[in-house]
Amino acid sequence: MTAGVDMGGTKIQTAIVRSGKPLGQARVPTPRGGPGEVLESVRSTIVDAAAAAGIAPADLTGVGIGFPGAYDNKTGDTVSAVNLAGFDKRYPFGSRLSKAIGGAPVIFDNDVRAALLGEYRAGAGRPFKDMLGVFVGTGVGGGLILGGKLRRGQGSAGEIGHTVVSDAGRLCGCGRRGCLEAYAGRGRMELRARKLVERGDSTILFKVMAEKGRDRLTSGVIAAALARGDNMADQLITDAVWALGIALASVQNVLDLEAIIIGGGLGDRLGPPFIDRIGAAMQPHLFMDSRPPKMLATELGDLSGAVGAALLALDAGAPRSQAAPVR
Amino acid sequence: MTAGVDMGGTKIQTAIVRSGKPLGQARVPTPRGGPGEVLESVRSTIVDAAAAAGIAPADLTGVGIGFPGAYDNKTGDTVSAVNLAGFDKRYPFGSRLSKAIGGAPVIFDNDVRAALLGEYRAGAGRPFKDMLGVFVGTGVGGGLILGGKLRRGQGSAGEIGHTVVSDAGRLCGCGRRGCLEAYAGRGRMELRARKLVERGDSTILFKVMAEKGRDRLTSGVIAAALARGDNMADQLITDAVWALGIALASVQNVLDLEAIIIGGGLGDRLGPPFIDRIGAAMQPHLFMDSRPPKMLATELGDLSGAVGAALLALDAGAPRSQAAPVR
Repeated sequence: MTAGVDMGGTKIQTAIVRSGKPLGQARVPTPRGGPGEVLESVRSTIVDAAAAAGIAPADLTGVGIGFPGAYDNKTGDTVSAVNLAGFDKRYPFGSRLSKAIGGAPVIFDNDVRAALLGEYRAGAGRPFKDMLGVFVGTGVGGGLILGGKLRRGQGSAGEIGHTVVSDAGRLCGCGRRGCLEAYAGRGRMELRARKLVERGDSTILFKVMAEKGRDRLTSGVIAAALARGDNMADQLITDAVWALGIALASVQNVLDLEAIIIGGGLGDRLGPPFIDRIGAAMQPHLFMDSRPPKMLATELGDLSGAVGAALLALDAGAPRSQAAPVR
Repeated sequence: MTAGVDMGGTKIQTAIVRSGKPLGQARVPTPRGGPGEVLESVRSTIVDAAAAAGIAPADLTGVGIGFPGAYDNKTGDTVSAVNLAGFDKRYPFGSRLSKAIGGAPVIFDNDVRAALLGEYRAGAGRPFKDMLGVFVGTGVGGGLILGGKLRRGQGSAGEIGHTVVSDAGRLCGCGRRGCLEAYAGRGRMELRARKLVERGDSTILFKVMAEKGRDRLTSGVIAAALARGDNMADQLITDAVWALGIALASVQNVLDLEAIIIGGGLGDRLGPPFIDRIGAAMQPHLFMDSRPPKMLATELGDLSGAVGAALLALDAGAPRSQAAPVR
C-alpha cells in the first residue's frame, strides 16, 4: 500500500491506495506559514488517511507527492513553488516527511502529471492509450499520454494552458497575452470579474462569495452563481468554453487523440454539461470532424492527483522491470 | 537499392536511394490527364533515375510512393487525391507500376510523412528524436516524430495546417476559418493577392508570374517579388510568419520538442531567413522561452519526400524485426 498526496495551493488531499483503489483519504486546507507547517499538515493527512484505511503510516511502502513546483528527487528536497507560501528556497521536505511517518520513501512528481496518471490508470482514461488531460482550476494544466506513455518532452510537455487562442488577447498570469489560461483559468476569471464590476457591470458573484465565506471566486462560487442565472458568470464560462474549444481542437488536429479528459476544480464542479459545451465548441475547428475525440469527465474527481501520486510511489518501489511501463 | 517517388500536384520527383543517400534522381511535371498518364510519368522517372544511378529498374528491391491522398496498400490501389486530376476513384496504380518496372513491390504512404521521414533519417533531423516537420507549400502539411517514432494517431496526426491561429479569421481551403494554412499556404496567399489587387492594391507578383511563364504564384514567383522589394509579397510573408509563430509556439508548449524542421516549396525557397523570422515570431508565445526548439531548414530540400519514400520501401522489404523501428 502507498500514500499519494496532492499538494495544492488551496488544499492538501491525501489518499491511501491499493490496486488503484483509494482505501482511505484525508484533506486539509493548505497552511500559509511555510514548509514546516505544510509538512505537519501533510503528515497529519497521512496519519488520518492511514487510520481510515485501517493501517499505520509505518506500513506504507512509499509516499508519492504531486507537487506544484520544482523538486529534486535525488535529495528529496522541494526547490520552489510559486503558489505555496514560503516555498521559495530548498527545503528537505522528503527526508523530514519520511522520518515523521516511520520511514516510507517519499518521491515527487509534477501535480498535473500525477492527476493525469491517476485518471489514466485508475479512472476515466483506462480504456485509452492516447489522451490529453486538461485540469481547469486556478490555472489550466495539462498532460499527455501518448501510446500508453506519459509524455515529458524535454521536461515540461503538456502546457496546454499556454497555447495561444487569441494573439494580443487577454493578459495571462504568465505575462503573455491570449493564452488559454487567460480565459479559462479561475484566477484570471476572477480578475476579469473584478474589472467588469469596476466598469459598472452587475453580478451576484461577489455576493455569493461572501455568503459562502470565501475570499476568492472558487469553483463552487462560480457554479452557484451560474445556477442562479448570473449573466457575468455565464459570460465568463462562455469565454472559457470558446477558448478551450480553439485550443483543444488545435491539439486534436496535431495529435489525433482518442480522448480528452477534463478535470480540475472547475472542470469537476461544472461536469458533463460544461464538457459537452467544450466538445461542441471544438467541433467547427476539427480537421477530422467525423471522428472527434471522446470528451470525458474525471472519474476520481478531487482524488485524481492523490491516487496518481500513490501510483507513482508504487512504480518507484517496484523492481525496475515492472516500473518501466506507465500502465 | 530502393526507389522513392514524391507524387505532388505539381511535380513528380523520384530518387534512387542506398544507405539513405540519393544516387540518381529525375523529375517531371505532373501530367493532368489522369492516372494512366501519371503512371507513365512515374515509370519514366524511375527508369531515368535508375539510369543515373547506374542500375536497371529490375534491380530495385522496392518502390515507395509518397502519395497526397488515400491509398490501399493491401491491393496496391490508389483511392483518391483531390490535387491529382482523375484520381477520384480506385486505380490499380501499384500493381501496374510494379509490372511496368520489372517486378519491384510498390508501397504507398502519406506524402508529408514520407518527407518528414526523409529528413529524420537522412537529413536535418538526424540528431533529434522529438521533432515537428512543417512543409509550407500550396498547403501547410506537418508530421511528428516523438521518441524516435512517427506519430500516426488514429491515422491523421500532424495536421498542423489546421491549427487555429485566429478564430473567425481568413477562410481556409478546408472550409474553416482562421487555420494556419489560410495564412501560410501558397494557395491561399495567391487568393489573398488576387483579392488585394481587385481592391486596387499594387504589386509586381502577377507581372513576375507572367515573366516566369507561370500560371500561378509559385514559391519562386513569391521569392523573386520579395527580393525585388514588393510590398504585397512582403505583407503576405509577414502574415505567414505571424501565423506560423502562433501555431508552432502552441505546439511547442504542448509537446516540448527538440527541433522544428521547416521545408516545403516555400520553406525551402525562402530558407534560413524565413525560418529565423518564424523562430522570432514564436518566441513571445513560448512557455519555456529560455529553451526554444532548434529551428532547422531541410537538408534534402526537394528530395525529402522521395528519399523518405525510398526508406519506407526499404523498411517494408526488411525482415520484420528490422522494419519495426522508424530509425
